Amino acid sequence: SKEDFDLAFIYVSDAQYNRNIFFDTSPQSVRLYILYNHWVAQVLLYFFILVDLSLAIFEEPAVVATPIWATMLVELLCLLVFTVRLVHYAKVIPRDKFWKDAKNICIIVILMLTLVDIIIYGALKAADCYAVRWSRVLRPLLLVNVTEGRQLRRAFRSIRNALPQIFYVFLLFMFSVLIFSLMALKLLGKRGLKTTEGTPYFTNYMEIVFELYVLVTTANSPDVMMPAYNASFVFAIFFILYILVNTYIFMSVFLAVVYNNYKKYLKEEVRQLVRAKRHKMVRAFAVLQEQREEGAEPVVSQANWNQVVRLVQPDISNAHRELLWSVSDHQTQGCIGKVEFVQLADLLNIEVITLKSRPHPLSKLCPSLYLSAPSRFICWIVQHKAFVIVYDLIILVNAVFIGLDEDNPIIANSEWGFLTLYLLEILLKLYVFEPRAFFSRNSFWNWFDTIIVVSALVATIINSAVKTSGGFTSRQILDIVFILRVLRLIRVVDSIKRFRTIINTLIRIGPAILTFGQLIIVVYYIFAMVGMELFKGKVKFSEDPSDPLRESCGNALLKGSVFAQLNYCKNNFNNVVSSFILLVELTVVNQWHDILYLNASDGFTAVTHVSARIFFVLFHIMVVIIIINIFVAFVLEAFFVEY
Amino acid sequence: SKEDFDLAFIYVSDAQYNRNIFFDTSPQSVRLYILYNHWVAQVLLYFFILVDLSLAIFEEPAVVATPIWATMLVELLCLLVFTVRLVHYAKVIPRDKFWKDAKNICIIVILMLTLVDIIIYGALKAADCYAVRWSRVLRPLLLVNVTEGRQLRRAFRSIRNALPQIFYVFLLFMFSVLIFSLMALKLLGKRGLKTTEGTPYFTNYMEIVFELYVLVTTANSPDVMMPAYNASFVFAIFFILYILVNTYIFMSVFLAVVYNNYKKYLKEEVRQLVRAKRHKMVRAFAVLQEQREEGAEPVVSQANWNQVVRLVQPDISNAHRELLWSVSDHQTQGCIGKVEFVQLADLLNIEVITLKSRPHPLSKLCPSLYLSAPSRFICWIVQHKAFVIVYDLIILVNAVFIGLDEDNPIIANSEWGFLTLYLLEILLKLYVFEPRAFFSRNSFWNWFDTIIVVSALVATIINSAVKTSGGFTSRQILDIVFILRVLRLIRVVDSIKRFRTIINTLIRIGPAILTFGQLIIVVYYIFAMVGMELFKGKVKFSEDPSDPLRESCGNALLKGSVFAQLNYCKNNFNNVVSSFILLVELTVVNQWHDILYLNASDGFTAVTHVSARIFFVLFHIMVVIIIINIFVAFVLEAFFVEY
Ligand code: NA
Repeated sequence: SKEDFDLAFIYVSDAQYNRNIFFDTSPQSVRLYILYNHWVAQVLLYFFILVDLSLAIFEEPAVVATPIWATMLVELLCLLVFTVRLVHYAKVIPRDKFWKDAKNICIIVILMLTLVDIIIYGALKAADCYAVRWSRVLRPLLLVNVTEGRQLRRAFRSIRNALPQIFYVFLLFMFSVLIFSLMALKLLGKRGLKTTEGTPYFTNYMEIVFELYVLVTTANSPDVMMPAYNASFVFAIFFILYILVNTYIFMSVFLAVVYNNYKKYLKEEVRQLVRAKRHKMVRAFAVLQEQREEGAEPVVSQANWNQVVRLVQPDISNAHRELLWSVSDHQTQGCIGKVEFVQLADLLNIEVITLKSRPHPLSKLCPSLYLSAPSRFICWIVQHKAFVIVYDLIILVNAVFIGLDEDNPIIANSEWGFLTLYLLEILLKLYVFEPRAFFSRNSFWNWFDTIIVVSALVATIINSAVKTSGGFTSRQILDIVFILRVLRLIRVVDSIKRFRTIINTLIRIGPAILTFGQLIIVVYYIFAMVGMELFKGKVKFSEDPSDPLRESCGNALLKGSVFAQLNYCKNNFNNVVSSFILLVELTVVNQWHDILYLNASDGFTAVTHVSARIFFVLFHIMVVIIIINIFVAFVLEAFFVEY
Repeated sequence: SKEDFDLAFIYVSDAQYNRNIFFDTSPQSVRLYILYNHWVAQVLLYFFILVDLSLAIFEEPAVVATPIWATMLVELLCLLVFTVRLVHYAKVIPRDKFWKDAKNICIIVILMLTLVDIIIYGALKAADCYAVRWSRVLRPLLLVNVTEGRQLRRAFRSIRNALPQIFYVFLLFMFSVLIFSLMALKLLGKRGLKTTEGTPYFTNYMEIVFELYVLVTTANSPDVMMPAYNASFVFAIFFILYILVNTYIFMSVFLAVVYNNYKKYLKEEVRQLVRAKRHKMVRAFAVLQEQREEGAEPVVSQANWNQVVRLVQPDISNAHRELLWSVSDHQTQGCIGKVEFVQLADLLNIEVITLKSRPHPLSKLCPSLYLSAPSRFICWIVQHKAFVIVYDLIILVNAVFIGLDEDNPIIANSEWGFLTLYLLEILLKLYVFEPRAFFSRNSFWNWFDTIIVVSALVATIINSAVKTSGGFTSRQILDIVFILRVLRLIRVVDSIKRFRTIINTLIRIGPAILTFGQLIIVVYYIFAMVGMELFKGKVKFSEDPSDPLRESCGNALLKGSVFAQLNYCKNNFNNVVSSFILLVELTVVNQWHDILYLNASDGFTAVTHVSARIFFVLFHIMVVIIIINIFVAFVLEAFFVEY
C-alpha cells in the first residue's frame, strides 16, 4: 500500500542521510515526518537560525543601528518558527521519546529563556533602565540542538567526553605554572628589578602566574624575561626551562590527548551510526518483505524495490537504478534478501561516475570537418604534454605582468591578451574533450578555470565600460578584477603531480573543516556576546585620521598606552563584526595581552580590569587548547591516512 | 682460546650496544677494537669534543677573553686527539671499509679544514688583518660524525630522508605565500595606506612577501593587518583567510609530513639495527660453537657462555647470570643452540628487578624491638593512606608559607619545622621499608625526595651559619635554598594516580629528548657561529643603568627604535652565550622580527640589512618547521602508545 511505501521510503532515507530519529509509525506521523524532512522545511529552519544569529548585527551595540522593536519582532518571529518546528517534531515522535531527549528540553529551555529575556529587556528599556540581553548567548546553542545539527552535536559530544582527560592534563599543567611562578617569586621578587615601564618586576604572585600563563602562549616572549636576563644570564635558563616544559611539552601533550580522545569518541559515534543505519534498513525490509514460498527466507521484489528507490531518489536515472539492482540481485532471481537490501543505503550514497567515452557532439554534427586532418592535429596538440607546459609558462609570464604596475598602458592592455589566451585554452579543450565529461562533477580544476576566466572577462569588460564612460575606475570592480587575475595563477599547481596529491588530501578534509567551522562559530558567538556586554564602548575607533581622539582610542586612560600606540583602536568589542575579528586575533594569540589592553604594568587595568584576563584564559583554553588542536588533529589524521 | 673469547666478547658487546662496525677479525685488530670501545677512551673523546665546542666561549667575540694562542693551542690538542682516535679506528677496520665510509671522510675533511683555518687565521691575525674563524661552523659536525654519535647520526639521516617530502610541501606553501602577497599588493598597494610609523603600507612586493612570511609565524599579528583593517573590515577577511591557510593548515601539514616521514625512516633504521644485531650474534655463535655429535646442530656450552657473559658484563651477579642461562637453556641440556644464543644481546639489556622481599635489617639486629607492638603500630601508620594525605597537606601548607614573605621571622623559622617534618618522613619510611628496596633504581620519587630534602637541610644550615657569622645572607645560597624548597612541592603530584601516568609517559620520552637536545645544540651552534660573524658588536648592552648608551643599545641608528624601547639590547650575538639565548628566543618565534631589529618600516635595516632576514628564514625552516615538529612528533607518539 501507499502507506507501507511511505514508511519504507522514510526508513531508507533516514538510513541514507544518517538520521537517527525514532518516529511514530502511524500513517499520519509518517506523513508528517516526511514533511518534516522535506528540504524546504530544513532550508527554512537554517534560514531562520541564520536570521536569529544575524540579529547581533542590528542589536545594540549595532553595526547597523535598528530600532529595538524591529529586532525584537524578528526574533519573536524566529522563536515562533523554532516553536512550530519543535511542535512538528513532537507530533512525529512518540511522546515519551520526545521528553526523554535532552536536545528537545534544551530547545524548550532556550526558547523560554529567550522569551523571558525579551520581555524583561523590553520592559526595562521602556522604563529607560540599564538592561542586558543575556539570552543572546544561548542562540548558537539552537544551531547545535536542532535535529539537523547532527555532525555538530557529535563534535560537541566528543569534546565533552574528552574533557576529563584534558582536565587532568590541564591540572598538571596549571600545577607546573604555579610551581614555576612560586620559584620566580622567590628568585626574582626581592632583587628590586624593574620592568621597561619602571614598575616593580615579579613581586606579586598572582601577577607572575598571569605573566607566565601569557608566556605559555609565547605572546610576551622575550619581554617578560628581559629584566631578569639583564640582571644575569642565569635567569634566562629559568625561562628557557619554563618554555620547554610548559610551551613545548605540555602543549604537545594537549594536542596528543585531544587527538586521542576526540578520535576515540568520534569512532564510537560512527560505530553507533552504522548500527542505527542497519537497524533502519532492517525495518524498511520488514515493511516491504514478502514470503515467496512456505518456510523460505522473506524477500523484496524488484517492483517494490524500484518504487522505494524512486521515492528516495526521484531524480535517479533508469540506468543507474538498474545498475544498483543488478549489484544487489547478483544471482538475477528477481528479488533480494535482507542482507542485500540492507546495502541499499550505502549503494545510494556511492557516486556513479559514467566513464562511457561518449563521442564528441561535433563529430556527430559535422563528422567530415571534426575528423579531418587539421582538426585531428588540433586535438593532438591540445592533448600533448607541451600544451600544458606552454600554458604554465603563460601563467608565469602573466604573474610577472600582474606584479608590474597596472597604470602602465602596455601592462593594462596585456590583460586582454592573457584573457584571450585563457579563453582560447578553454575553447580548445571543449573542442577536444566531450563537454559533459569536461564539466563532470569531479573535474574541479575545469570548473575552477572556467568560472574564474569567465568572471575575469565579465569584470574586466565592466571595468573598461565604467572607465570609458565615466572616466573613473570603481575601486570595488577593480578589486574583484585583481582577485580573479591572481586566482587564475593558482591553476599552475595542478600541473605538478606532487602538489596535486597534497591538495587532494586538503580537499578531502573539506567536510570536516565545515563542521569545524560551525563549531568555532558557536564558540565565537558566545564569547562575542559576553565580550560585547563586558567591554563594549571602552575604546572607540575614529574613521577620521585627524580626530584627536584617535591617539587615545577615545579613552583618556589609554593616552600614550601601547594599545593606542600600536593603533589597535579598532580591536574592540563595539559590534559583532569587530568582536569576531578580535576573537580571531585572540585565536592567533600573538599580542593578545596588548589587544585586551590588560597589561597591568601599563596601568590600564582601569579600562577593563581583571575580568578581561579571565575572559581570555577561558577563551584560550576553549579555542586554542581544545578546538584548534582538534583542527590540527583532523589535518594530521587526513595526512596519516594519505601517506 | 683467549682470542676466540675476545672475538666473541666484542661481537656480543657490539650487539648489546647496537654498534655496527665491521672491524678486522685479526687478533691484533680485535685487541685494538676492545681498547677503542673502552669507556675511558669514549669519555675522553666526548670530553675533548666538549672542550672543542666550549672554545667558542673563549674565542673572539668572547665571554671570557683569552689570548688567541691559548685557544688555538687547545684546539690543536683537540684536533690531535680526534686524529689519534681516527687513526685508531683506521687500524681496527679493513682499509677499504674505512675509505668507503662517508663519516670518516667527513671527519678527515673537517680536521683538515680546521687546521687550514687555524693557520690562515693565525697568519692574518699576526699581520693584523681582518680574519674570520669560519671552520668553527664545522665543530658540531664532529659530534655528529664520531662513531659514538649513532643516535644523533640516525636522527640526521632521518631528517635528510624526509627532506624531499618536506620540500614539496614547502614549495606549495611558498607558492601560497607568493600568491597571497601578489593579491595583497594589488588590493592594498594603491590605496595610499600608511603604517603606524607613517611609511607606505604594502607597496613593495618583496616587503609584502616578508611581512606575510612573518605573519605565518604569527609574530606580527595583528599589527600587519591594522592599517588595512582600519581602512575597511573587509580586508580583515583577507588576512583571516591567509592565517587559516598558511598558519593553521600548512603548519599542520608540515607537522604531519615531518611526523610521518621521520617515523617511517626511523623505523627503517631500527629494522636495520635489529638485522645488524642478529648478524653480530650469529658471528659470535660461529666463534664459540662446537659440534657435540656427528651431524647434530652446533651448540655453545655453558662454560663458554659463562666466560663470554663475564667478559661482556664483568659486574654481573652469579644469580643474575644463572637466571639468564636458565632462560636460554630452558630444556636444561647444558648447552644452547644458535636461536637461544642470539637472544643473549637482548637478555643482557633487560633490567632484572629483584622483587625479593628482604627482611628489614633492624628486624635482624634487634627483632624484639622491631617486632614489638609500638614498632608495628608505626609501620601500620606509615603504610596507611592517611599518612600520604597528611604529608600532602603539609606540602600544601608549606607552599603557602613559601609564598609568604620570608623576612617575617615566624615564616623564616617555620622552615626548620617543615625540614624536620620532611626528614622525619624519610626516616620513618626507612624504618618501615627495606632501605635497599627504598633506594632501588626505579624508585624515582624516593631518590628525588631524599636528595632534595637533604640538600635543602645542608643549604639552610650553611645559610644560617653565614647569616649569624657575617650578619649578611649570600644571595646565591638563598637562591639555592629557595629552589630546593619549591622543588620539594613537586612531590605532591606523585600522590595522584592520573598525574603519575602522565608523568611516567613524559619520563619515558627522556632518552628521545636527549638525542633531540644534541640535535638542537648542533643546529644552534652552527647558527650561533654564523650569527656571531654576521651580527657581532652591532648592538651593545651596558650593565650600568645610568649609561646613556643604554637608550640606543650603543648604536646611534637604534636610538628611539622599538628594539631599544623594548630593552632588547642584551638580545645580541656578541658572545656565544647570548647567541644561544637569542636563538632560543627565535625558536619561540614571538617578536623575532623585533629581536633581529630588521623591521624595515622602522628604518633600521642599516644596522643589519637583509641578510638578517635570510638568516632567520633559514633558522625558522630548520628549527621551527623541522626540528620542533620532530619534537612534537616524539611527544605525540609517546602518548599514542600510552593510551
Ligand atoms: Na606569537
